[in-house]
Amino acid sequence: MIKTDILIIGAGPTGLFTVFEAGLLKLKCHLIDALPQPGGQCSELYPKKPIYDIPGFPEVLAGDLVTNLMEQIKSFEPGFTLAERADTLDKLEDGTFVVTTNKGTKHNAPVVVIAGGLGSFEPRKPQIDNILNFEDKGVAYMIKDPEVYRDKKVLIAGGGDSALDWAIFLADVASEVSLVHRRNEFRGALDSVEKAAELAKSGKIKLFTEAQVTKLYGDDNLEAVVVKYNDEEKGESYVEVDNFIPLFGLSPKLGPIGNWGLEIEKNAIKVDNSYDYQTNIPGVYAIGDVNTYKGKLKLILSGFHEAAVMCQSAYQIINPGKRYVMKYTTVGGVEGFDGSKKEAKKEVIQSIS
Amino acid sequence: MIKTDILIIGAGPTGLFTVFEAGLLKLKCHLIDALPQPGGQCSELYPKKPIYDIPGFPEVLAGDLVTNLMEQIKSFEPGFTLAERADTLDKLEDGTFVVTTNKGTKHNAPVVVIAGGLGSFEPRKPQIDNILNFEDKGVAYMIKDPEVYRDKKVLIAGGGDSALDWAIFLADVASEVSLVHRRNEFRGALDSVEKAAELAKSGKIKLFTEAQVTKLYGDDNLEAVVVKYNDEEKGESYVEVDNFIPLFGLSPKLGPIGNWGLEIEKNAIKVDNSYDYQTNIPGVYAIGDVNTYKGKLKLILSGFHEAAVMCQSAYQIINPGKRYVMKYTTVGGVEGFDGSKKEAKKEVIQSIS
Repeated sequence: MIKTDILIIGAGPTGLFTVFEAGLLKLKCHLIDALPQPGGQCSELYPKKPIYDIPGFPEVLAGDLVTNLMEQIKSFEPGFTLAERADTLDKLEDGTFVVTTNKGTKHNAPVVVIAGGLGSFEPRKPQIDNILNFEDKGVAYMIKDPEVYRDKKVLIAGGGDSALDWAIFLADVASEVSLVHRRNEFRGALDSVEKAAELAKSGKIKLFTEAQVTKLYGDDNLEAVVVKYNDEEKGESYVEVDNFIPLFGLSPKLGPIGNWGLEIEKNAIKVDNSYDYQTNIPGVYAIGDVNTYKGKLKLILSGFHEAAVMCQSAYQIINPGKRYVMKYTTVGGVEGFDGSKKEAKKEVIQSIS
Repeated sequence: MIKTDILIIGAGPTGLFTVFEAGLLKLKCHLIDALPQPGGQCSELYPKKPIYDIPGFPEVLAGDLVTNLMEQIKSFEPGFTLAERADTLDKLEDGTFVVTTNKGTKHNAPVVVIAGGLGSFEPRKPQIDNILNFEDKGVAYMIKDPEVYRDKKVLIAGGGDSALDWAIFLADVASEVSLVHRRNEFRGALDSVEKAAELAKSGKIKLFTEAQVTKLYGDDNLEAVVVKYNDEEKGESYVEVDNFIPLFGLSPKLGPIGNWGLEIEKNAIKVDNSYDYQTNIPGVYAIGDVNTYKGKLKLILSGFHEAAVMCQSAYQIINPGKRYVMKYTTVGGVEGFDGSKKEAKKEVIQSIS
C-alpha cells in the first residue's frame, strides 16, 4: 500500500503544481495517471504546440511547461503511479481513503484530489475481432517504454503525429518498422512528415498507405497481421510482426470516477468554489478542468489557483487544529524534502565609508 | 478624458495580466498607478528578488516577471497613467464610471477593476518643517525620470537599496551626488553596497553618515540643506543643492479608494468569489491582493485567476446579450490590437510515399 498525505489523481499541469503548493505546507504527494508520463494532455496531445495564456510566458511550448513544472516540484519528491487508471475509491474507518487502480495498485491518504482534466485518456481501439486476446501480448495502444521494441518487428497503424513520431523513433530501435495508414495523406508537424517521408524512401520504414490491419494471428503472442488495401485489386499482405501498435488517438472519459458518488454535472465534478474546491465527499477535492462551478473557466491558470486554495484546506484535514502561517517564497524561500533550500540572497548590512 | 473598456487601478502583475485576458475578449484597457513605472511591488520593492511560486517558473526575479508580462500584453496596447493616484470614482447617468487622479486626469470606462495590491504606495516623508513648500521644487520622494537630475547637485537621504542604487546611478548623471544616512551601516544587496563604497572612496559620491537633513533653504526653489551630525561635536554642514531626494521607503495605504463606498473588511475590498470578483458596486471589480473573501490567499497566481474570471463577467457588461465563445490560445492563437497575430504552426497534410 502506497501511503501519502495528498493523493492526486491526474498528473497534468494542475496535478503537478499541487505538489508544489502542498510541499510549501510540508505535505507529501503521490500522483496516479492513466498516461505513461506526467503532463497530461500537454505531454500526450500537444507537447510541441505553443500556449500563449500562461501568465508570465508570452509563449511556452506545452511540453516545456511540463518540464518546468517537474523541475519546480522536484525537491518535494512526488511519487508516481503511471499508466494505471484510478478505478475505485473506498473510505476506511479511520477516515482515510484507499484508491485502487485497474492494475490493483493500492494508495492510502487522508486527502484525495481529483485533477483529472477531461478524464482519463482511453485509446481508440481498432475494430478487429480478436484484438483483445493479444493486448499486452504484442498489441499495445500507447508506447510506454520504447526499449520493449528493440530488435523487434513492429507495425504501427495511424496517420497523425503519434504514429509518425513513433515510427521515426523506432526506426532506430526496432529491427523492422512498418507504418499502415488507411489514407494516402498524413497529418502532422511539417518536420515529422518530412522525416517520415525520408525514412520511407530509404526503406527504413515500410509504408502501407490506403490500407488497414484486418486480422491478427498468433498462438499465445502475436505473430502476424493481415494488411488489406482499400483497393480490392491490390488485395492484402500477410506481415510477420512481433508487435502491432494502433495509434488512433486518445479520447478522454471521466470513466470510473463517475461511479464514486461524486456530484456530476455536464461530465464534470461539482465543487464548492466559494471556499476550497471540495466535492460533496468531504476530504475529496476536484481542481482544474475536471471540476465545474458557476463561471468556471477551463484554463490551466485557474487550475493553479484552485490547487493553491485546495492545499490550504487539505492542511486543516491533515493537521487538525494546527494553524499555518503563510510565508511568501520570496521571504521564506523553499525548503525541499530532499534537504535542498532555495532562498533569496540576503541583504548585507555594512559600513561603506 | 481618457476612454477605455476596462479601467484598471493598479499596474502590478495582476493588473497587467488583466490586459491580456481582456485583450483575448477584444476589450481595451487603461491602467492607473501611483508608482512611476508598471509592476507594482515587484518593480518598486523587490525587482531583483527571486519568486519561487509562480507556476512554471522554478525561479523568476520579480523584475523579470514584470518584463515578461509587459511583453505578453504588448500587442493589446494598454494605456498608462503613471505616478498619479486614483482619487475619486463617479458614476455617470449612462452607467459608466469616471475616475479622477490626484493630478486631475480623468478616465471614463463602463468597467472599473481595482487591482490595487496593498494599496497605493505613499512615500515616507522626513519630518522637516518646510518640506511641503519644496515638493516638486527640488524635493521629490521617488525618482520618475533620472534625466531631470542631469548636471544638477543632488542630495539623497536613506540607507537602503533605493538610496544606494539611485546614488550609484546618478553619480554618472548629476554634477554632484551626496548621500546622507543617519547610521553608519547601509542595508542592501551586496553588489550595491560594494559599488557605492567604491564611488564614495573615489569621491564620486560625497558621503555623510550618522547624520541627517534638518533644514531646507531656498526662495522659491530649493537651494541648500543643512546636514546635521548625530554627534554634537561634529556640528552641521550647509550644503548647496538643487535637489533633495529622501528615499525612506514606501508604505502602502488603501487611501482614497477607501472612500468610494466599497465594502471594506480588514483593509481589503470584499468581493463575490463564488462568481466574478465583483464588489458591492456593480461594474466595479476587485482582484489580487486588494480583495478579500473566505479562504483568500494573497498570491500572485490567485490574482491571475481572478483577472481571467473577472474579464468574462466584464464582457457581459460591455457587450450586453452577446455570447462569447472561448477559444484556447493554442487553437485560436492571439490577435493583437496592433495587427500582430501569434499562432501555433499549422499541421501539414501530405502524402509521404
